[in-house]
Amino acid sequence: MTTASDRSLKDRAAEVMPGGVYGHLSTGKLSPNYPQFFAKAKGAHLWDVEGRKYLDFMCAFGPNLLGYGHDAVNAAYVDQLALGDVMTGPSPVAVELAETFVDMVDGVDWVLFCKNGNDATTAALMTARKHTGKATIVRAKGAYHGSAPWCALGDAGVGPHDQADQIFHRYNDVEDLERAVKQAGGDLAAIFVSPIKHDIIIDQELPDPAYARRARELCDETGALLVVDNVRAGFRLTRGCSWTAMGVTPDLSSWGKSLANGHALSALTGADVCKAAASQIFVTGSFWFAAAPMAAALVTLRILRETDYLEHTVRLAEKLRTGLHAAAQRHGFGLRQTGPAQIPLVTFEDDPELKLTNAWTGALVQRGVYFHPYHNMFFCAAMTEGDIDHALEQADGAFADIKG
Amino acid sequence: MTTASDRSLKDRAAEVMPGGVYGHLSTGKLSPNYPQFFAKAKGAHLWDVEGRKYLDFMCAFGPNLLGYGHDAVNAAYVDQLALGDVMTGPSPVAVELAETFVDMVDGVDWVLFCKNGNDATTAALMTARKHTGKATIVRAKGAYHGSAPWCALGDAGVGPHDQADQIFHRYNDVEDLERAVKQAGGDLAAIFVSPIKHDIIIDQELPDPAYARRARELCDETGALLVVDNVRAGFRLTRGCSWTAMGVTPDLSSWGKSLANGHALSALTGADVCKAAASQIFVTGSFWFAAAPMAAALVTLRILRETDYLEHTVRLAEKLRTGLHAAAQRHGFGLRQTGPAQIPLVTFEDDPELKLTNAWTGALVQRGVYFHPYHNMFFCAAMTEGDIDHALEQADGAFADIKG
Repeated sequence: MTTASDRSLKDRAAEVMPGGVYGHLSTGKLSPNYPQFFAKAKGAHLWDVEGRKYLDFMCAFGPNLLGYGHDAVNAAYVDQLALGDVMTGPSPVAVELAETFVDMVDGVDWVLFCKNGNDATTAALMTARKHTGKATIVRAKGAYHGSAPWCALGDAGVGPHDQADQIFHRYNDVEDLERAVKQAGGDLAAIFVSPIKHDIIIDQELPDPAYARRARELCDETGALLVVDNVRAGFRLTRGCSWTAMGVTPDLSSWGKSLANGHALSALTGADVCKAAASQIFVTGSFWFAAAPMAAALVTLRILRETDYLEHTVRLAEKLRTGLHAAAQRHGFGLRQTGPAQIPLVTFEDDPELKLTNAWTGALVQRGVYFHPYHNMFFCAAMTEGDIDHALEQADGAFADIKG
Repeated sequence: MTTASDRSLKDRAAEVMPGGVYGHLSTGKLSPNYPQFFAKAKGAHLWDVEGRKYLDFMCAFGPNLLGYGHDAVNAAYVDQLALGDVMTGPSPVAVELAETFVDMVDGVDWVLFCKNGNDATTAALMTARKHTGKATIVRAKGAYHGSAPWCALGDAGVGPHDQADQIFHRYNDVEDLERAVKQAGGDLAAIFVSPIKHDIIIDQELPDPAYARRARELCDETGALLVVDNVRAGFRLTRGCSWTAMGVTPDLSSWGKSLANGHALSALTGADVCKAAASQIFVTGSFWFAAAPMAAALVTLRILRETDYLEHTVRLAEKLRTGLHAAAQRHGFGLRQTGPAQIPLVTFEDDPELKLTNAWTGALVQRGVYFHPYHNMFFCAAMTEGDIDHALEQADGAFADIKG
């Protein structure tokens, strides 16, 4: 909850940072019950600056997949840091990590490491333009691929030509996708898609297999590249490429967030067909070959391969979804629970301004369970059955609170 | 030097990464004597995968300012990592770091933290466009502000409109700057400059004070913002903003590389006049509020304030410059040593294809001293008088080597 210490930190932040805390971590649009700052994190829990503990269903907006402060992952980080991190050349761990990635994920022939998820989506854009010699990209209206001017969702600070050569379509709408590709004429470089529709505020959608297959076909017909942006959902739907289960293999995929369980690392992966183009663009960053996050990612990938983290989080997520549905019914509320259970968006029926949703998540956070009212949430492998029982108990209490 | 192990790693890298090692760390254009991979780094030294030791004058292309594996900086990192790093909100350390930055650097009223230097230059672009409601930026031809499409130096993968609304001028040329500003008509959003001219291959230039002052005046006259990109040279010319000594305070400055002595952190800083605009753009990244690099930066900034790291590196750099000049003369060579002594570019007179420069730096690296033939070099505070003596001795030997 917002305490005197948290308020005082927010006031200090507003003095020395533009708007105080900025970006997706800002609690500016949330209930005043939300703490803005955290002093500590471990496993599935956060502690605010007054020492209050929260069961965290945001997982740092995705990076936390195995649990905060994961011992084996962080030990690998710290050991590599002692040896060498950012240097005048890469460490051999870069090669080992790329080999592991290629070995683990079907359809991935090569890896280009970077820092932000947005670095990877930008490198995808450049690779597609270099590969095809064409400029236009087709992407879904409202989909988030980063905050750089070429993909920003708002228009503040975006120049009049920053989103030139882009055509938008409705996610999951085959006809509208075909219309957009037709509109690109002979200039299509790529189709960009998220593996699921996970825009903020509105219902999430699983991909229609017909839509996924048609996107692949349209790329094959035109020579354009299919880019699946796995930054947010990667390793949370499957251990491999997100659309593989539908028989669709992208040419390029972007990854980030959970790749090193919270350490700063992202990647563009691709198929052999566009490896030459990827080698011809010049993309780089001062910290992209830092070895410590790569050592952490190596351990993360090994754990993803060797444990049931995925089945565990799906099981807990389905238990939460079922339990929330029952609790809402008991209290006479209708919930909209959309997206995969483990990447859920939970809002209320007939609540277009999110008043009930905001009140309920505000009550939940007051009760020590951190839910988000309009951004999809996340699970981590450190969560237990007991945590879900606790969350359901508090959710029940929060329903009662808002009927109040 | 390239050894069997290094070659084998390069071969493996080429299998799983586009072009093998990509970006500025690639040794593809350097003498085959250069090792591509490093196993270890400490202080002023690197060790390749065969255990050969190098005195490193590249400092990871800038991030290493205090020495690799700096004990106090890394201890702060590791301690914060154990407490909490990437979380669902920032740690209080973010506020403390922003306050320290504002307190330390004249003309800085606020700080927006990010990861890549390029994130900061992009946020500067967006802030300037939001602040002015205009689109055009004037920047110096050949200057590096990152590899994103809007500032990429090459055209591979860059779309036909990615660099629209940009006008180029010659650095240090007041008349050409005025011509560019005039050409922008009423649409000037910002003038972007590096604090020194540090383009690759060609001679570096210190800024002409008349040019710096005129850039400031032109911004004041038009309402545009002056952006000084300190990513590469920040904290290496002065402890404050790079142009302050000439009486010129920018509206926006970008920082990166050495800010946390190698840990991934960058920042856009600004004056109050454009704080509102910076709060209205939406820029963010999954790892931007990671607390561990911020804890490392806090210690780094404290060391920058409290020690003579700057005077020490300048003294060593001038000793190297003087010594290299004398050694070259003894061997009948003419060197071009341009830029500030502590950010030097060292090439040979009458060597347009860099043949002598490549041969000499290739010989030097063979002798365990890592120089770069066409990118400016860097010093770190861990270097000693003895290191410079050693470098000069090897430089002398390398001159003899290339005379055959």
